[in-house]
Amino acid sequence: MYDLVVIGGGPAALAATFYAASKQLDVAMVYEELGGKIGWLQSLAGPDLHAYLPGNELAHLLTIRATTQGGRSIDDCVLSVTVSDSTFNIGTARHGTLQSRTVLVATGATPLQLQVPGVAELVEGSVGYSISTYAHVVRDQSVVVVGGTARALSGAAELATSARQVYLVAPNPVAMNAPLGQALRQHPKAELLDGWEVTGVVGAHEGIDVMVERQGQARTLSVQRVFVALGLIPNSAMVRSLVKTDANGFILVNRFHETSVPGLFAAGDVSSIFGEHVLTAIGDGARAAMTAYDYLLAQRVVGCV
Amino acid sequence: MYDLVVIGGGPAALAATFYAASKQLDVAMVYEELGGKIGWLQSLAGPDLHAYLPGNELAHLLTIRATTQGGRSIDDCVLSVTVSDSTFNIGTARHGTLQSRTVLVATGATPLQLQVPGVAELVEGSVGYSISTYAHVVRDQSVVVVGGTARALSGAAELATSARQVYLVAPNPVAMNAPLGQALRQHPKAELLDGWEVTGVVGAHEGIDVMVERQGQARTLSVQRVFVALGLIPNSAMVRSLVKTDANGFILVNRFHETSVPGLFAAGDVSSIFGEHVLTAIGDGARAAMTAYDYLLAQRVVGCV
Repeated sequence: MYDLVVIGGGPAALAATFYAASKQLDVAMVYEELGGKIGWLQSLAGPDLHAYLPGNELAHLLTIRATTQGGRSIDDCVLSVTVSDSTFNIGTARHGTLQSRTVLVATGATPLQLQVPGVAELVEGSVGYSISTYAHVVRDQSVVVVGGTARALSGAAELATSARQVYLVAPNPVAMNAPLGQALRQHPKAELLDGWEVTGVVGAHEGIDVMVERQGQARTLSVQRVFVALGLIPNSAMVRSLVKTDANGFILVNRFHETSVPGLFAAGDVSSIFGEHVLTAIGDGARAAMTAYDYLLAQRVVGCV
Repeated sequence: MYDLVVIGGGPAALAATFYAASKQLDVAMVYEELGGKIGWLQSLAGPDLHAYLPGNELAHLLTIRATTQGGRSIDDCVLSVTVSDSTFNIGTARHGTLQSRTVLVATGATPLQLQVPGVAELVEGSVGYSISTYAHVVRDQSVVVVGGTARALSGAAELATSARQVYLVAPNPVAMNAPLGQALRQHPKAELLDGWEVTGVVGAHEGIDVMVERQGQARTLSVQRVFVALGLIPNSAMVRSLVKTDANGFILVNRFHETSVPGLFAAGDVSSIFGEHVLTAIGDGARAAMTAYDYLLAQRVVGCV
């Protein structure tokens, strides 16, 4: 029986495992991808951008500590989580069922992909899914942002402070009437194409041609980079029937990272407190582990009565 | 004119400065002590305990990055912060008045000291102010916890899971009737001395004798370690007249680390979201810097209209 099973291998999971191990808890981390989205973001941009990714060094240090100092690291996929008599059963694909007193879900979220002809060929370097990581490397470039979410909007605003030209292609705009959307509509370096859709992309001399369409109209936007902000899918399937989520499947947590199920905690991009950045995910993972530790402590002290 | 002035030099301040510099903001960090409480905790326990302090490696890495990659580090004391026309004026002791669009207060909090005869002589190694950092090194030791706060109580409960004997000396108990207090009262390894006061400490063979007194009664507790949890004083004096605080002077913040003053943010132990641990302070500092960045972004975009 573990004290804590952490599901996930990104910064939130690593920080939680690291904290739990430092507290002498019997902790196991079950991950499919060590480092989570960190390695993935690096591969998107190519090796030359390593130095620009703040926090990755810290995450790598945490990876070493979390996997070597106490705690067990299990490379496996979690299929299900159930609870009975305050004990959690964590079903894995290759390591059977793990039992634990508490569980932390830190499995992250997966960006919705832009699925149009030509994207697969361009993905290395010129099509990205994290505006905030790369905003400062687009100085004097033309860029396209695809997506109608609040994050697409704030991303476009961020890009507009340094890019030469920002096209925001919002197939189904939901956030464009917010004050920031209104301001952006007037911005000399931004153009909002709401109701337009991307139909294809193709590599061009020193850039990309992005084909867009609305009601029979067609345009080609010649840019250097495309940022996709269509939304995130939380990786919460294994606990979806156990715990309360919002309409999109993000696990609802309070600021101590407690969920609707006692003993079950969530942190990072899979939770309703979005992780957003390596450093904040580290902090949230550690805070969730602290709450789990307090929960175990109360059980142990009361158990002695 | 700076974009952001960060006041403080601990993990929250370092993470915020690091994030802001990575976003190309014009940021200055004004600190009195680089590393904040981290170095201080180390000196309390002696060099042999370095390896036990989780997160310190990360904080040191952040210190290097925050002070060498962009951003200006100013070793000085901030005397006052005022605001007029959305511009903050930060008065320093030796560097005049700095001007900035936003300010982050991350100055931490100072533990109330145990002021009784004999403490000064013992402070190296045997008297500590951070229970959660050292709880796992007291296995099979006898310890005294001094303080009647909720933190003293949860600290005593944590120590009771590994120590041989825990005495909780609560001069003015406020939290002892909480469920955890009731449980601890029944705990075989804990003794609550509420209403008792420490009158002095003295080094003894392999430990410390702690003299306590209540209404003329006197006892001597022979232990290996003393933990002081009398409370924390937030270092918020320089903004106390500007911003809303709670009754104890902690700066009130929402979960985005906004205070009652637009453009003024707070994170770490000085704020109402307690930092608690190096990792969570890092996360909270980064999140506060993100909020400051969004605030500046909205100003810049709207400013272009």
